[in-house]
Order: sequence, then C-alpha cells, then structure tokens
Amino acid sequence: MMVVVQNIARVDSHLVDALAQSGVATVHEAQGRTGLLAPYMRPIYAGARIAGNAVTVSIPPGDNWMIHVAVEQCREGDILVVSPTSACDTGYFGELLACSLAARGVRGLIIEAGVRDVRDLTAMQFPVWSRCISAQGTVKETLGSVNVPIVCAGAAVHPGDVIVADDDGVCIVPHASASHVVAQCTAREQKEAVVRARLKAGELGLDIYGMREKLAARGLKYV
Amino acid sequence: MMVVVQNIARVDSHLVDALAQSGVATVHEAQGRTGLLAPYMRPIYAGARIAGNAVTVSIPPGDNWMIHVAVEQCREGDILVVSPTSACDTGYFGELLACSLAARGVRGLIIEAGVRDVRDLTAMQFPVWSRCISAQGTVKETLGSVNVPIVCAGAAVHPGDVIVADDDGVCIVPHASASHVVAQCTAREQKEAVVRARLKAGELGLDIYGMREKLAARGLKYV
Amino acid sequence: MMVVVQNIARVDSHLVDALAQSGVATVHEAQGRTGLLAPYMRPIYAGARIAGNAVTVSIPPGDNWMIHVAVEQCREGDILVVSPTSACDTGYFGELLACSLAARGVRGLIIEAGVRDVRDLTAMQFPVWSRCISAQGTVKETLGSVNVPIVCAGAAVHPGDVIVADDDGVCIVPHASASHVVAQCTAREQKEAVVRARLKAGELGLDIYGMREKLAARGLKYV
Amino acid sequence: MMVVVQNIARVDSHLVDALAQSGVATVHEAQGRTGLLAPYMRPIYAGARIAGNAVTVSIPPGDNWMIHVAVEQCREGDILVVSPTSACDTGYFGELLACSLAARGVRGLIIEAGVRDVRDLTAMQFPVWSRCISAQGTVKETLGSVNVPIVCAGAAVHPGDVIVADDDGVCIVPHASASHVVAQCTAREQKEAVVRARLKAGELGLDIYGMREKLAARGLKYV
Amino acid sequence: MMVVVQNIARVDSHLVDALAQSGVATVHEAQGRTGLLAPYMRPIYAGARIAGNAVTVSIPPGDNWMIHVAVEQCREGDILVVSPTSACDTGYFGELLACSLAARGVRGLIIEAGVRDVRDLTAMQFPVWSRCISAQGTVKETLGSVNVPIVCAGAAVHPGDVIVADDDGVCIVPHASASHVVAQCTAREQKEAVVRARLKAGELGLDIYGMREKLAARGLKYV
Amino acid sequence: MMVVVQNIARVDSHLVDALAQSGVATVHEAQGRTGLLAPYMRPIYAGARIAGNAVTVSIPPGDNWMIHVAVEQCREGDILVVSPTSACDTGYFGELLACSLAARGVRGLIIEAGVRDVRDLTAMQFPVWSRCISAQGTVKETLGSVNVPIVCAGAAVHPGDVIVADDDGVCIVPHASASHVVAQCTAREQKEAVVRARLKAGELGLDIYGMREKLAARGLKYV
Repeated sequence: MMVVVQNIARVDSHLVDALAQSGVATVHEAQGRTGLLAPYMRPIYAGARIAGNAVTVSIPPGDNWMIHVAVEQCREGDILVVSPTSACDTGYFGELLACSLAARGVRGLIIEAGVRDVRDLTAMQFPVWSRCISAQGTVKETLGSVNVPIVCAGAAVHPGDVIVADDDGVCIVPHASASHVVAQCTAREQKEAVVRARLKAGELGLDIYGMREKLAARGLKYV
Repeated sequence: MMVVVQNIARVDSHLVDALAQSGVATVHEAQGRTGLLAPYMRPIYAGARIAGNAVTVSIPPGDNWMIHVAVEQCREGDILVVSPTSACDTGYFGELLACSLAARGVRGLIIEAGVRDVRDLTAMQFPVWSRCISAQGTVKETLGSVNVPIVCAGAAVHPGDVIVADDDGVCIVPHASASHVVAQCTAREQKEAVVRARLKAGELGLDIYGMREKLAARGLKYV
Repeated sequence: MMVVVQNIARVDSHLVDALAQSGVATVHEAQGRTGLLAPYMRPIYAGARIAGNAVTVSIPPGDNWMIHVAVEQCREGDILVVSPTSACDTGYFGELLACSLAARGVRGLIIEAGVRDVRDLTAMQFPVWSRCISAQGTVKETLGSVNVPIVCAGAAVHPGDVIVADDDGVCIVPHASASHVVAQCTAREQKEAVVRARLKAGELGLDIYGMREKLAARGLKYV
Repeated sequence: MMVVVQNIARVDSHLVDALAQSGVATVHEAQGRTGLLAPYMRPIYAGARIAGNAVTVSIPPGDNWMIHVAVEQCREGDILVVSPTSACDTGYFGELLACSLAARGVRGLIIEAGVRDVRDLTAMQFPVWSRCISAQGTVKETLGSVNVPIVCAGAAVHPGDVIVADDDGVCIVPHASASHVVAQCTAREQKEAVVRARLKAGELGLDIYGMREKLAARGLKYV
Repeated sequence: MMVVVQNIARVDSHLVDALAQSGVATVHEAQGRTGLLAPYMRPIYAGARIAGNAVTVSIPPGDNWMIHVAVEQCREGDILVVSPTSACDTGYFGELLACSLAARGVRGLIIEAGVRDVRDLTAMQFPVWSRCISAQGTVKETLGSVNVPIVCAGAAVHPGDVIVADDDGVCIVPHASASHVVAQCTAREQKEAVVRARLKAGELGLDIYGMREKLAARGLKYV
Repeated sequence: MMVVVQNIARVDSHLVDALAQSGVATVHEAQGRTGLLAPYMRPIYAGARIAGNAVTVSIPPGDNWMIHVAVEQCREGDILVVSPTSACDTGYFGELLACSLAARGVRGLIIEAGVRDVRDLTAMQFPVWSRCISAQGTVKETLGSVNVPIVCAGAAVHPGDVIVADDDGVCIVPHASASHVVAQCTAREQKEAVVRARLKAGELGLDIYGMREKLAARGLKYV
C-alpha cells in the first residue's frame, strides 16, 4: 500500500546546523564510518554544504508524480531524499520543482536518479546531489510513498534522519544519534586542529601518531 | 563504401538560434520527450548553451582521419557530431582541430569518445560534449563517412538535424520538425512562466496541476 | 615482503618543470603515445598542471597506513602515486595528509581510489587526480610497500619516473626518457605553432598535412 | 560498537520452502514489487533456486574476518548475507568457508563483493550470488557486526528476513510478511496458470487483460 | 504521437535463414562492419543462433504495456526488438509473454533493458538478448510505438530489418541489403574455409595474407 | 619504436603445469596476493584451467595486425596476452586465429578487449579470458610490439612470465618466482587439506585458526 506519512519527528535545527558546519567527512568519521551514500552521488555544482531533515520519497522508475506529493510534506530546513524502486537515470527534477521547494525553505535534494535544468539550479543556488544529469522527462501515473524508510545509493534513510551533503558526498545521521554525533564532531575537530598545526610545522604523522613501532612489529623493512 | 556527402540541407539560423535559447530540457519536452543523447555525454566546461546544424562523422575506433575530412564540410553555424563504429575512449580531438573549426564558424563538437586539450578548449571557449576526457592519440589510416545518418550516444542523427546542447546534455531536433518545435517551446515557456510565479508564491503543484483527485482515485493514503 | 625503498633517483627539476609546461597531451604524443593513465583518473578541480618525481605506494584495499609511511620519503618536487592491490573506492586521503605533504613541498597526489575533503584541498590548491571522491574512511592495519614498481590506472609506474598531470589526465615519463621527451615536446610545440597559425587563417588540415591523395587512394568518394 | 547478535527470530521452514518454490520474480511481484537486490548480483552458476533465513554481516572493505565469526551464528536453513561498508570487489569467500557453511546446513551466500574458487563451489553445488568473481585475498584485522540490519545491493536486509534467490537475482521477504507473501504467491500462480494456458492457445494479452479500450482512450493509433 | 504500424515489409524467409546460418560475426563483416549492437547485449543462455524480421517497440522506462500491443503485430519468423526511451534495467519481459510470442512463431527477443524468468525461458528455449537480468516489475500506463524506427543498444533498427543474434551478440541487416549480404557471407565463408585449412596445417597468417612486406615497410623491427 | 622480441626465456613446463594444477586463487595467495588481473577479465566458457608462458602483445585500439605477427613467436605451451594501448572493446580475435594458435600448441588467449566466434571457440575448446565479447571487426594498419613488458587489466606482464587462468580469473607469476611459488602452493594445499577436513567435520574456523582471543581483544561484543 502506498502511503504519505504526514508527521515525522525532526531534529532540532541547532544540531542540524552544527552537522552542516562539520561536513560529510567529519560526520562520517564521528559516527563510526557509517551512513555514507555511494560515491556516484555527486553535486551538480561545487561548494555547497548543507544539512537538513530527510523527507523521503520511494518512487517508480521514470515517474515523478510522488515528488509533487512530497513537496507538501516539506518544511523549512528539510532536504528531500528520492530513490526509485528500480535503477533509472531519468530526469525526475528540474527548476520548477526547485522553485516550489525553495519557497518552502527546503535546503536541497538528494536523488538516486537524474536531474535537469542544472544551469538554472546553479543560478538559483539550489543544491542537488544526484546519480546523473539527464533532461529525460518523466510521467505522472504511478503511486509511491512519502516518509517511509528507503534505501538511497546504498544507505538506509528514515524520515527525519539528518542528511549532511557537501563536495565529498552525502551522509545520513540517524535521528537518535544527532546530538551524540555533534559532540563527537567537536571532539574530532579539536583533536585535528592540534594535529594540523604539527603537520604544517613539518612533523610527521609517523611520529605524531606513534606508528613506527607497530610498523616494525608487523615486519616493515626499510632498504 | 565510405562517402562524403557535400550538400546537406540546413535549418534556418533564426530557428536554430531560437532552439539554443530554449535549451535542452525544454526542447526535449517540446518534441514529445525524444531525441536525447545518453547522459554520459557531458560538457567539458559548465555554462555553454549552443545550437547548430549537424555535420555527422562515422569514424573507426582510434582513428581521427575523417574529422580532418569533415572540417571542410562545415560552415558557419554548424556543430560537428562524431560517433565511432565501436566504443572507444581515445582522444580524437584537441585544440588544433578546434582552431580549424572555430575559423569556419563551427559552434561546438559532440563526440561519443574522448577529447583532449580541455584546458585550451576552455580558454578559447570552444564547447565540447564528450563521453570522456582522454589524451590518448589516434592514427590516420582508415576511412569513415561524413554526412551520413549515424547513431551517437543512443540517438539517431541525420546530417542537417539541429543539435541543441547545454549543461543538461545534448538533444537532436530532426530537420523537418525545427519550426514546429520552436513553436512548442514558446508555448511551453509561456505556460511555465505562469506556473513558476505561482510556485514561487507558495502554491503547490498538487493544486496548480489539480492532482489530488487522481491521487485519491489511485488509492494514495495519508496517515 | 613489504619494503620501503629510501633512495630513489630523481629527474632534474628543470626537466620536470619543462614537462609540466608542455602538459599531458603533448608529453604523451612526444613519447610515442605511451604512459597515459586510464581516463577515469580525474582532477578534483580544474586548472592545475603539475609535474614531479613519483614516490610510489602499493597499498591494501581500505587501508591507508602506508601513505603515512610514504610521506617521510617525499621531498620538494615529488608527486605521490598510490595504487591499491585490489579495486577500492575508499577515501584514503584528505586535508590533514595534504597539509603534511604540502609542508614537504610535494606537488600533488595521484591515487587510483577515493579522496575526501575536496573542498579544503581545493581551497589550499593541493591538486589530486583520483578515481572517485569518497568520504569513506580507512583503517591502519596492513602493510604495503613504498617506492616499488606499481601499476596505477593501467600504467606501469617506477619510483623516480616523472608524473605529468593536468585537466587531460595523467601521464608517466620513464626516468631515463625525460631529457629526450623534453626535446621531443619542444620540437612538437614548434611544429604545432606553425600549423596553428595556418589553421586559424582558414587553411585546412587536409591541405596542410597533404591528405587528399591518400584519401583518394583509399577510395573515399565525394558525392 | 561492533556486535554479534546471537538470537534472531527465524521464519518457519515450510514458509521458507514455499517461497523457494515460487522463485524470485513471483515473490517480488507478490509482495508489491519490493525487496529486490540490484541486478548486478549474479549467481556463480545457473539453475540454483534457494530460500533461507538471513544471517547478516556488515564487513570492512578487503577484510573477511567477520565471515568467520558469522559462521558460528548460522543454522540449518540459513543464508549468509554479506555487505562491505564501502564498495570493494575483493574475493571474501571461497571453498573452505563454503565447506564450513555446508557442514552447518547453510543453503548459500549472498555477497555484495567478490567470491573465488567458483569451480569448486560449482562442483559442490554451494550457490553464491555476488557482485563479481575475484581471487583477490582479504585480511583479518578489523571488526564488523553480525546480525544487524544492513543494506545489500540496494536493499535493506534484517536478520531473520527470508532471502529468495535464483537465476533472476535475489529478493528479500521481511520476516513479518512471509506468511502473507506465500499466500499471495499461491494466488498469483493460480491466476498465471489460467493466463498461460490461454496465451499458449493463441489468445492475446490485449484481450485476456482487456487492454484495448484503455489503449484507445490514451490515444494509441493503428496505421 | 504514438502509433502502431500494422503492415511492414518482411524479408524472404530463405534469406533470413541463410543469415542465421552465417551468424553474427560473419554477417557483420560481410556488410562492411556495420549494424552491430553494443556488446553489453548478452544472451540469457549460450548456444542459440537465430535470425528473423524485426518488429520494433519504442517503450517508456519501467512500463511494458506496449509489448502486449506488439505481440499482436508479430508473425511466424519475427524477432521482437524493444528499446526504452531512457536507460532502464527493469524486467520488462518474462515467461508469460514468451508463451504468447512462441504461440505466434516468434523466434526471440532483443531488449535493451531487463528480462526475468530466465530459468523458464531457458527451459522452453526461448532466446533473449538483453542488457541485464532483473525481476523488477513494470507498470502498464504509458503509450509507446510499434514498428517505428528505433535505436537499440547503439544501432538503428527499422521494422522489417533482419536481426541476427547468437553468442557473439546481435547484428542488424537492413531490409534492402539482405540478399546482397547473404551473397557476401557465402563468398566470405568459402574464402575462410581455404584459409582455415592452411592455418590448421601450420601455415602462418603472415604468409597467407602476405603481410611481411607491409610490416617491414612500416618499420617493424625483429630483435 | 615498435619491435618484435624473438627470444624470450620460458619457464620449465613441469613448473608451468604445476601452477595450472593449483589454479588462480591458490597461486595468487601463494605469492603474497599479487599478480591478479582485474575481475572484469572473464572466461568465454566455464571449466578451463590453464597455465603457460606469456607471449605479450601491445596493440593499438581497433587494430589486430600485431596478433598475426605474434602468432609466429608462439610455441607449444604458450599463452598469448594482448593489451590495447587505449581501452577498446573491439573483437580482435576469432576462430581463424584460434586455429592458427592451436596448430602451434598455444593453450589460450588473455585479451583486455573483445573476442568473437565464441561458439566456435567453445566447440574447439580454445579458452579465452577477455573484457567482453564483441563481433566488431578490426583493421590491420598500425604497428605495435610483441614480447615487450605490458600492463594487462591492471597487472604488469613480462614476456615469459607464467600465466595461470581459470574460472576465478587470471594471475601472473613472474618468471623468476615460478619455482618458489610452486613450492608455496604445495605447502598451502597441504595445510588447506587439513583445515578442510576439520571444517567438514563441523569444527569452526574461529577455533581452528584460534581467532576468539584476538576478536575479544579488539572489542567484539556478543549480545
């Protein structure tokens, strides 16, 4: 049965914004190297870094009807996450839908399929991470579901999870972990700041991380 | 038998330029969602939007001899469309050939293979849509044909068809349809301008397009 | 047995810099169309053109320990070349390692795997050519080797070879050929300058290269 | 934190066996076209058709240690489902592990990575569905988890779900739906038997399914 | 506008059968190395070699309605050729449709998409060449066209062309060339029979084809 | 300069045959997990397991002239290894060349490109490992080299190295290591025979390999 779930729990915006600040690589490490979407998900333009609450869409191949349905479920600070039930490169999304989402305060789109009007989307700075760019149009005939658990580009996404996306890709932070991950990010960033200063001063990671003994124990030979 | 067809019918430049103005996504929709090349055809730099008459080249793998032959067949306002007879990523085209085409007023290149010197091509703003970027050189030993029907990246192209290319990809408008498609584009753009304004004002596509009843009839449940 | 070779012969910097000046496409042609890496190796940002001496790393899938070991072997003017023993898209390298390499005067990284922190790498202008962009972290458990012969993206690389990399991809110049290739590049560039001027003036390659007779002999028909 | 969950709820064997009888295409349709793994998951030999309870493994790239841990959690009638945390084609599994699984009554392996010893696995008729065949060995250094929810080849898998696999691919039946899906399969098979007889007798699907009116209403023209 | 063209010109069955006899590699060579579909089109089982007249179907992504329409247009000796308007791996075709086609004497299916029930199709020896195997179901909502020119896997196909398919792939013989190509195949086979006997007797192609002089003239050195 | 090296050192046939006996997975492990070709190299039919001395061919894209040259350099017990200078799927090799190689006692072909006549090659049991199957013909215009070091499918191959190939793929044993690797294979097989018997008897790898302590030390939790 196809459903639209209307009420989803969202994460507090100060946590979401803190995750955006940290970015994908840090968030992914901070939560134990989990939650990353496959690397074929690429931004349509460089430089965007966003986070938001996931509104999820499970959608048939070549049919974007449910994106129109999903728009209504979106609020300020959300990110739309769309995954077709069968691999399909069709261009599900373009500038008109972006105008509609932007009018509701949606921060961006993650779609395991194609997107079009990328010139216009770039001009209006509406960021999209997609599997490809394609102008191929879709139909509006078959139902899907909104705000159900989906798999997008190899990662499980639940409605209300936090999505973090930047030039490194896209990462999912489960709703319940957001607060903990923010704390881990902060700790990690502080530690990295110290290491960064030492590396820039010419010290070696081999020494900073104390790797030489373990390398020798494993049998590494210098010749 | 390998041939060079010297006289091809071209489309009037005001129609060609109107199609460039509309861009790939609009043109593709306006002609009934046909004519699109596969999405692996990508521009070497962002921002170009061109249209022109196709001069076609059927070419062997790893051999760019026929591109030199085709240059002579090109005129002001043309676009060269090159397709190897067998999948091959070799770099068939670089800056010197671009100088030659630019000197004849050619607007760009569509090639289902590799291209090189992309830094120079970007600097001289000669746009190319290709399957990949590769410096691998080619030989000049085997004939092909110029201005015969070809298949390029999954689309049938006839000499004198209009090629439209931008950041969304590449679309073919058959010679005979150019005038009709321009009219359809204009109609579509006018309709979209109205929808765009309403979406920006916060109205939903669900309401603008009157989708709610059909969704309910199909059985969509809101929970 | 896993080893770190500490002394490698490097090519004189004036030869290395001359190769950078010529760029990948010219160098590749000048040495007889050899040495090119596969075209899936792409720069993380456009516009960089570098050359340097290869410090090579053979590394297990999903484990970047040996990159830390390799940093110590790098000198001013080197380029790090990393290849996993089995295809793997993991993000082996990020901004901290780049800080460390930059502090030693390393000019860039070639890695047949993933890279992350591309926004930071772009900001600090540390160029990387990689198979993909991925934030997926690695472990530090298993040895590999530094400065042994490797295959990277389909090309054989020996420590101390010259690496040339730009928007067209990556090319390897064997250590022993560097001087000869520089000379060939100069000769090629001089010849191309003459051809370029004639092409820009509207002459055809068909005439400049004297191709018409051979084409006719092969049976090309103009209709 | 890496964990091994030791007690999972399994589906009754008569339901599991009924699903094996129906096969992937029927099961997938019967549960509303959900649960299918990506089509790059292929059997190492043709003709096997199995079903079993999923024992899941989340595993690092290039490291098969946790498969050894998972063997102990397997029982008669299970199927092992393995997914690396980052895409990796390494050969995680071979004949020795198959001997061990077979000794415990495990019916097969689903792995989104590589497998080796396929000649031996074929000879002993231990079926595997994998992303590729690769002899590349793995290490045993890094933990993962057993019997946690995973994503395998684009589908969410929970421990104790039923896996159905045959020449058409692999499908997941959620633990709670097994009984309902078996009923749906039976109904579908009965309906299809009737249609099959009519089609073999030369009747057309157009008539059996009553499609002609809807086609005409949509505007299909016969010329 | 979507249409079904009901009357197409077919090639005489003795020519079609002669082309089947020759097979794909010979036919492709005999017509000047043209007409080959991309090599990702693979048979679902080894050993089939067929030829037949093309009934073509242009079809939307994820929607197999028009295959049902096309069945009615098929006759004894035809081959159905199906191409989606946008790349899509969905399983458009299975055993029930095969029963229907087989009842009409159709010899096989060429589809640039997915197919399912391959175990049953193999058992009934109904050969299919497809881009992938996938159980993912389709809908029946959107029109396409039957017996219009299409592009399938990179080759242009017109209704009534002859399709030849075997373990080497799929080749298209244009309707008008069938008789000529049969003659060329016969000539080629006779010539090859002589060469085969000499090669089996230990003579070298270098001598049979008289290549040594040309090799020396091109500068090949034996060391 | 293009050359044919006529005298290469070959490995003694009893060592070569011993490596064939062990097969790819064992040989690859026995020599420290090196030498494996990329997993996209697949056999055209299942069940062949061969080893032989490499006669190498570096060849241009779409041009098989040098294979004819290479045939003359082959002897009883050799395996031909062919790699194009730029990625190309063309069908370089078919049944006539196989007749010629078989007449000289060549055991098989490894080619990082396409092969055709696979039905005939299967019938005559001439095994081929290739990147794809394609009937697309090649020209004979451009030189390459025979018996020079090449990179094939990501592995460095020197003339006279031993090639081992079976259903798991292809592995290179360097000429100098053959004797050592045979010894390692024997040792490995003896050790595996003991483990196999224990696994079949129901013992766990966890116990046989003594893994439980290390797992606990790394922090694995059983819940």
